[in-house]
Amino acid sequence: MADESPRHVTIREARPEDWDAIWPFFRQIVAARETYAYDPDMTEATGRRMWMIGPPGRTVVATDADGVVLGTANMYANREGPGSHVASASFMVDPKSAGRGVGRALGEHVIDWARATGFRAIQFNAVVETNNPAVALWRSLGFEVLATVPEAFHHPRHGYVGLLIMHRFL
Amino acid sequence: MADESPRHVTIREARPEDWDAIWPFFRQIVAARETYAYDPDMTEATGRRMWMIGPPGRTVVATDADGVVLGTANMYANREGPGSHVASASFMVDPKSAGRGVGRALGEHVIDWARATGFRAIQFNAVVETNNPAVALWRSLGFEVLATVPEAFHHPRHGYVGLLIMHRFL
Repeated sequence: MADESPRHVTIREARPEDWDAIWPFFRQIVAARETYAYDPDMTEATGRRMWMIGPPGRTVVATDADGVVLGTANMYANREGPGSHVASASFMVDPKSAGRGVGRALGEHVIDWARATGFRAIQFNAVVETNNPAVALWRSLGFEVLATVPEAFHHPRHGYVGLLIMHRFL
Repeated sequence: MADESPRHVTIREARPEDWDAIWPFFRQIVAARETYAYDPDMTEATGRRMWMIGPPGRTVVATDADGVVLGTANMYANREGPGSHVASASFMVDPKSAGRGVGRALGEHVIDWARATGFRAIQFNAVVETNNPAVALWRSLGFEVLATVPEAFHHPRHGYVGLLIMHRFL
């Protein structure tokens, strides 16, 4: 049985062939409509194009000691030109690997990357307010809630819930 | 001399050939770096692709009685899937036509369109806090400031200023 402590989560650059490991849980997460304001019926080609981004952005995967992909994140400038000093990022953790510290490892990686790249802050534009593990994780990593956009997300069980805008300076 | 009252501003669907009238002031506004977090060096082809959007979004132009393009707006769902019930929009008014009610006519048009299309709210994601005419206009049209993202816009004269997230229900 694999050791499940976070210290065995490794973050590395995503390679094109990682998409085959990402797509099953990406599709599952998007189809669940609980945490992402993405088209729940998006095709695999669209998913790949939107997730596997190249420079100046980056996509990474989190793997276990056996190289199994447990989660993924991409990171990029939140806006262009006069707004390009603020980063943003998106995260997907395979639900089978929840609670193993994968999201935290990815989040810490993004913060380190954004700081090293010269960004001045990180902004998350749309954290679903009922996604308690995510909200708690980002708070623990120093993010604050700037605002809740009311009723901006239609959750399949909770109805219209808010989307949090979260932010931290670097 | 043309009557400059707002009642002579006409809003109509943009046609592909309108781009030639839009691009000069679009380029001027983006290059000024005062109101849009767009790449100030974007090419004309990129500008056209990002601005002249098709269904389910729309692009419109505001014209005077002689058919001269005074401004333009585009409008679209702010997010996909579970977030697709909130609209957003972007606006450009030719600086030569500032103060003639063009922005207000475009804003009222977008509110009417979003309501008629079945959106539940409109969100502006990045209104530069020093863009006083825009902030005052959106407030007068019923938008509230949900948050100011601190220092998220690098203004050429004012330095790092905030970006307002503005919102109104429909």
